[in-house]
Amino acid sequence: MKVQVCIIGGGPSGLLLSQLLHLKGVDTVVLERHSRTYVLSRIRAGVLEHGFADLMREAQCGERMDREGEIHHGFFIAHDGVMDRVDLHKHSGGNSVVVYGQTELTRDLYEARDRMKGKVLHNVEDVALHDLTSQTPYVTYRDGDEIVRVDCQYVIGADGFHGVSRKSIPKDVLREYERVYPFGWLGVLSRTKPVSPELIYSRHERGFALCSLRSQVLSRYYIQVPLEDSVEDWPDEAFWDELRRRLPDDVAGRLITGPSIEKSIAPLRSFVAEPMRWGRLFLAGDAAHIVPPTGARGLNSAASDIHYLYHALMAHYEKGDDAGLDAYSGKALARVWKAQRFSWWMTTLLHRFPQNSSYENKLQDTELQYLFSSDKALASLAENYVGLPF
Amino acid sequence: MKVQVCIIGGGPSGLLLSQLLHLKGVDTVVLERHSRTYVLSRIRAGVLEHGFADLMREAQCGERMDREGEIHHGFFIAHDGVMDRVDLHKHSGGNSVVVYGQTELTRDLYEARDRMKGKVLHNVEDVALHDLTSQTPYVTYRDGDEIVRVDCQYVIGADGFHGVSRKSIPKDVLREYERVYPFGWLGVLSRTKPVSPELIYSRHERGFALCSLRSQVLSRYYIQVPLEDSVEDWPDEAFWDELRRRLPDDVAGRLITGPSIEKSIAPLRSFVAEPMRWGRLFLAGDAAHIVPPTGARGLNSAASDIHYLYHALMAHYEKGDDAGLDAYSGKALARVWKAQRFSWWMTTLLHRFPQNSSYENKLQDTELQYLFSSDKALASLAENYVGLPF
Repeated sequence: MKVQVCIIGGGPSGLLLSQLLHLKGVDTVVLERHSRTYVLSRIRAGVLEHGFADLMREAQCGERMDREGEIHHGFFIAHDGVMDRVDLHKHSGGNSVVVYGQTELTRDLYEARDRMKGKVLHNVEDVALHDLTSQTPYVTYRDGDEIVRVDCQYVIGADGFHGVSRKSIPKDVLREYERVYPFGWLGVLSRTKPVSPELIYSRHERGFALCSLRSQVLSRYYIQVPLEDSVEDWPDEAFWDELRRRLPDDVAGRLITGPSIEKSIAPLRSFVAEPMRWGRLFLAGDAAHIVPPTGARGLNSAASDIHYLYHALMAHYEKGDDAGLDAYSGKALARVWKAQRFSWWMTTLLHRFPQNSSYENKLQDTELQYLFSSDKALASLAENYVGLPF
Repeated sequence: MKVQVCIIGGGPSGLLLSQLLHLKGVDTVVLERHSRTYVLSRIRAGVLEHGFADLMREAQCGERMDREGEIHHGFFIAHDGVMDRVDLHKHSGGNSVVVYGQTELTRDLYEARDRMKGKVLHNVEDVALHDLTSQTPYVTYRDGDEIVRVDCQYVIGADGFHGVSRKSIPKDVLREYERVYPFGWLGVLSRTKPVSPELIYSRHERGFALCSLRSQVLSRYYIQVPLEDSVEDWPDEAFWDELRRRLPDDVAGRLITGPSIEKSIAPLRSFVAEPMRWGRLFLAGDAAHIVPPTGARGLNSAASDIHYLYHALMAHYEKGDDAGLDAYSGKALARVWKAQRFSWWMTTLLHRFPQNSSYENKLQDTELQYLFSSDKALASLAENYVGLPF
């Protein structure tokens, strides 16, 4: 097989890039290790920066998002028994975010790829990247007993943290930066009306909690749990009880509970790999960086990479201008690190850290007190939450 | 002796409060353990918030400060070989700071107290506080062989971190919060023209450095050093060499050096004691809280306490209204903690922490990158640096 751009990974990043490039006449293939059903079963983020939403529209995949997604102009931070609202719209000068589940977004992207007869191959095994620093890289994979070769001009590594792409960069070139957190998020999805139309991030001495949602009939709740806990430790009732304890009384009183339709524990990790380019391989999304979910930067950082890659590749194909490709790693990383900073800040602000000194706990309190006393601090939070400029 | 307000400690906080109260007809005495010469030999901070400068003027002590002090509309942060300027005036909406040494300010306060024949007693020993939770507290001290008793209505503990006032609050009432930093500041005062008319805070992989000044003929420079170092490890030439290494090349090239006229190492500490009121004792300044010097909040936080205390005491004496006194501890601490937060943030931003992971070092870089890419982040820094509203 011969394509211009070979994309490893059929998650939202890979699909979005293939769709954008295809619309401009650039030939791509997407190689995905798992089945479509598997990819669509992953319950992930649901808060999209306005710039990401624009990219979905440019990819002609924004119709259902605009119809069913919800524009959120703000969110709440519950602390010390009170609810303070962050007015994103006001403090960002008119911007907002779209709440629309990653699953729905991925489904829309698959459907768009199908409509255009985009090449998206599933269940491909043993993907390997070759000759990345040559002018003629290629990718191989196994289809049954057959080894298939894909010749291409560029390889996009959008295959997630555990994917093969990052591992194809020599160890002496790659620098990895990591921070792990001493807790995880236990998440429950339930077909219930969300307790609040806007997200509630709750800082509580028992630990962090988040009231999120996928739609007005599908709620997503999280509580901070020790890393040692497993899903079996948390039957539904125990989860709802603990969630209620971590919310202000009036919110807890309004909470509508129901059977969990998904329940899982995710560890929290901050991770960045540099550089994001190696020869003709370009990393994007989780393949190069991971953030804790607080502040919803994960999927948005992936979209940011796709934004830069898309424009860089089009400058190459339309004008023979490689400046964007040469600048990609530096530009993408500059924005990635800012998202890392924000995610770290919001995680630190809202979670209970077992090893914290009383001084550090007081600093956390103070950060919140300062935040809600200062339009400047709120403006800084808001510009990060709705997405920094590209 | 009988006074309305007995002030323990003859540093700037105690002197300023006695001056302000005296001007309103409230009778005070200031008890200082050291000699005036000793107090005036302490080389300390030199950056005054605009609110502090206003308080000096209200105390009729602002004349020389306004004549000889310098209005600074900004400062520099040197990092990665470049100098970025923080335009305080622009980002705070028209505010600024006054650079005027604590020694000069203390001298002005002493002279004002002398002119008014204020009671400021030096070399008083064995100060002890009594019956603080009664309506009739009193203070005793030893003058030679004689024990002198001062009856008063209120006791102000402005006697610094090591003073007797905080220790007079029962241990089971007092909560102390502390953070120590794994380094100190080696400071040199020299009669040389400052390398920059505005302060330069320098973040460097060898450690933090600060180019500060007391006037345009008196420079004050600092470098971060390990806690184990002593002044003897740092002859003048070694200090100047190390300072130059931590500055951008063009700044280092301009540096004018000279003999040190003072050289000392100060450890960095964050500390807060709560509450700041116990019966009729009110703590102010270093007696209740310490910050690392980065960001110049120490003297300014003391002035903030004096602002609240002054207004609270005057409401009591002029209107019989004790609401301000009752609210003092909470109000003062709210602002103190914000200054703690800012000092911690600026210290963390600019110093080299030996135990930091590479991820944490990258976060520091990113914080600076974000700061200088965002008017919102700069506005937040600026409002803290010029002083949050009272």
